[in-house]
Amino acid sequence: MDGHGTVMPVTSSRAGAPGFPVVGVVGGGQLARMMQPAAINLGITLRVLATSFTESAAQVIPDTRIGSHHELDDLIAFAEGCDVITFDHEHVPPAYLDALVERGVAVRPGPRALVHAQDKIEMRRALTEAGIPNPRWTVAVTAEDVDDFAAGEWPVVLKTSRGGYDGRGVWVVDSKEHAHEVISTVQLGHEARWLVEEAVAFTRELSAQVARSPHGQAVAYPVVRTVQTNGMCTEVVAPCPDLEDDHAIAAQRIALHIAAHLDVTGMLAVEMFDTPQGVLVNELAMRPHNSGHWTIDGAITSQFENHLRAVLDLPLGSPLPRDEFAVMVNVVGSDAPDLYPAYRHAMARDPQLKVHMYGKDVRPGRKIGHVTATGNDLADLLERAHHAADYLAGDIDE
Amino acid sequence: MDGHGTVMPVTSSRAGAPGFPVVGVVGGGQLARMMQPAAINLGITLRVLATSFTESAAQVIPDTRIGSHHELDDLIAFAEGCDVITFDHEHVPPAYLDALVERGVAVRPGPRALVHAQDKIEMRRALTEAGIPNPRWTVAVTAEDVDDFAAGEWPVVLKTSRGGYDGRGVWVVDSKEHAHEVISTVQLGHEARWLVEEAVAFTRELSAQVARSPHGQAVAYPVVRTVQTNGMCTEVVAPCPDLEDDHAIAAQRIALHIAAHLDVTGMLAVEMFDTPQGVLVNELAMRPHNSGHWTIDGAITSQFENHLRAVLDLPLGSPLPRDEFAVMVNVVGSDAPDLYPAYRHAMARDPQLKVHMYGKDVRPGRKIGHVTATGNDLADLLERAHHAADYLAGDIDE
Repeated sequence: MDGHGTVMPVTSSRAGAPGFPVVGVVGGGQLARMMQPAAINLGITLRVLATSFTESAAQVIPDTRIGSHHELDDLIAFAEGCDVITFDHEHVPPAYLDALVERGVAVRPGPRALVHAQDKIEMRRALTEAGIPNPRWTVAVTAEDVDDFAAGEWPVVLKTSRGGYDGRGVWVVDSKEHAHEVISTVQLGHEARWLVEEAVAFTRELSAQVARSPHGQAVAYPVVRTVQTNGMCTEVVAPCPDLEDDHAIAAQRIALHIAAHLDVTGMLAVEMFDTPQGVLVNELAMRPHNSGHWTIDGAITSQFENHLRAVLDLPLGSPLPRDEFAVMVNVVGSDAPDLYPAYRHAMARDPQLKVHMYGKDVRPGRKIGHVTATGNDLADLLERAHHAADYLAGDIDE
Repeated sequence: MDGHGTVMPVTSSRAGAPGFPVVGVVGGGQLARMMQPAAINLGITLRVLATSFTESAAQVIPDTRIGSHHELDDLIAFAEGCDVITFDHEHVPPAYLDALVERGVAVRPGPRALVHAQDKIEMRRALTEAGIPNPRWTVAVTAEDVDDFAAGEWPVVLKTSRGGYDGRGVWVVDSKEHAHEVISTVQLGHEARWLVEEAVAFTRELSAQVARSPHGQAVAYPVVRTVQTNGMCTEVVAPCPDLEDDHAIAAQRIALHIAAHLDVTGMLAVEMFDTPQGVLVNELAMRPHNSGHWTIDGAITSQFENHLRAVLDLPLGSPLPRDEFAVMVNVVGSDAPDLYPAYRHAMARDPQLKVHMYGKDVRPGRKIGHVTATGNDLADLLERAHHAADYLAGDIDE
């Protein structure tokens, strides 16, 4: 990575109209990229801290600064001239965020909230204290600890407390020996603590998203059904079909409760397990989230627009859906490097499809885009979205 | 203007994924700006030729080149590396477009089509030849010519053939003396020819938009009602309420006919007068148009997305509306320079409103943004959109 300690303003800052703010986004991935259409419409200027000009968001945000979120000097230089700092990911060290706050930078979500999206043990502790329904959990250091927790009921789930995403840092272990194997081969940092959780027998996975602003306004999006493939979110149906009203309302209340309890600002996604006994919280994300990409085309206000409105303490937009259903399916890279020919075909087949490509080079297993279909015939929407996503990914055998 | 003859690549070109195209947009106004959200979603890279980094589109498009559309060298340098060139406005001299085409640049719409949006006399001639319903018209050089055309039936409309927009270059004259006054005071170029037209007794003004691609695919948007204030489009209702089916279908057919007859590529807006006897063509625009801003929030595929898809010869997206009605009202600058406080209030009052700000400094009478409201209660939508636009413009007395 170039530029440690030297965040270069290689492009002049191209601010908007007088009085309109600049939002700094740490991280140049597709979440930062998808904030830019919302910012353009709102007349708000984005600045992004990226590791290179080829990153997804750097391609579309003029005021791109090259630097590292692991370098405090880079973060300080980046924040200079921003009205507020927010995030594309959770990987900024909490101590650096504290240092920014001490210097008077508006960091949203703030470090005290964000730590619960950065550290899963902190998250479980806080949610348990707040009376939020969690899976059964404990903290383990050794395979003995895991075996004690399991008490003969295998499998259990072993998670690194920090640094995991898209299924990384999660192992389903079915014996003490398996737990030992994982613990002895995976290198953790200085704090060799593991989160151990019961393997929840869920009927489906849900996500409840809310936006919350510093002065406490909050809005709840419809609860969606998510499908994970190899630990990565690949399909979302909004709203979750056939979800009992009490489960849906419970999920929205939990998300609003967590947002207020942890003083979250911006978007909060609460990933949950639905079980016959009710919902249990799985994970938290304090930023726009894959489970909310449907909102770009399917809701009155997208999660990206409401994230910007929330971190700027602007009044929030309506989270209401625009159609009976929206289906989002991720485009995941395969061996085909040039997707443009398939892209033409996908558009020709389905003039109502909304195609989103992230400007990324194709690598097998990498999220490179998504498609959304909206309407009232769920089976038709699922067929169209999956067909298009498969086709765009290079799977053109059908 | 800086940089004549020296189009500087001041930012490195930040191309997208392999195989995905670069579209060059000549002109850095709000139309180029509003292409960027569509391009970001599609994974297409935009490059813009602007006169300064403070222009509306330059604020949001990393690959901004500073130069003049009146300098052929600037246009040639700009086109280098673009897959296709298109436009934010009609002001590029036709001879320069011919020169680009001769060099192998894909210019869309092409010069042979575009001249009909650049020159109103050329437009009237071509439409008359094609049997399209026009107002009665002639070409005049002197006030005598105007008087002969009027034949005692005043007023008539006097238009400069080139260079007019937003009501500029148009005079309603009510006598030979008045015509003489306009002709003798307005400086035309080397060709002192005026277009004279009957003053049509219209019941309302309409706009019919179509997108058409080089291989001939075309889609027609719903016909909308437009309201002009001081010659500038300020309100659009989509679709036009209470429009007789035969007038609506005639308007869409006329727009499709013109697009095919003139070989238009990209978006075409046909502004029309509705009269008891049928529709008459007023003006043409071969680019996204103010009468189509409602499509960003109100149609499945926005005019900006379909313009990009059309000029790239990609399959076109569905032009269908998403709600029963969409109302768009322009925000026009007044004396208030800082609109951010009013912006907060407008958002707080109406969480379903879609606010679009163009990043422009406020000047009295300047279009600086627009708002869109969608739903099924037209009176409510009109009230909300006008209230918000007035409020955003600084008129906060209500």
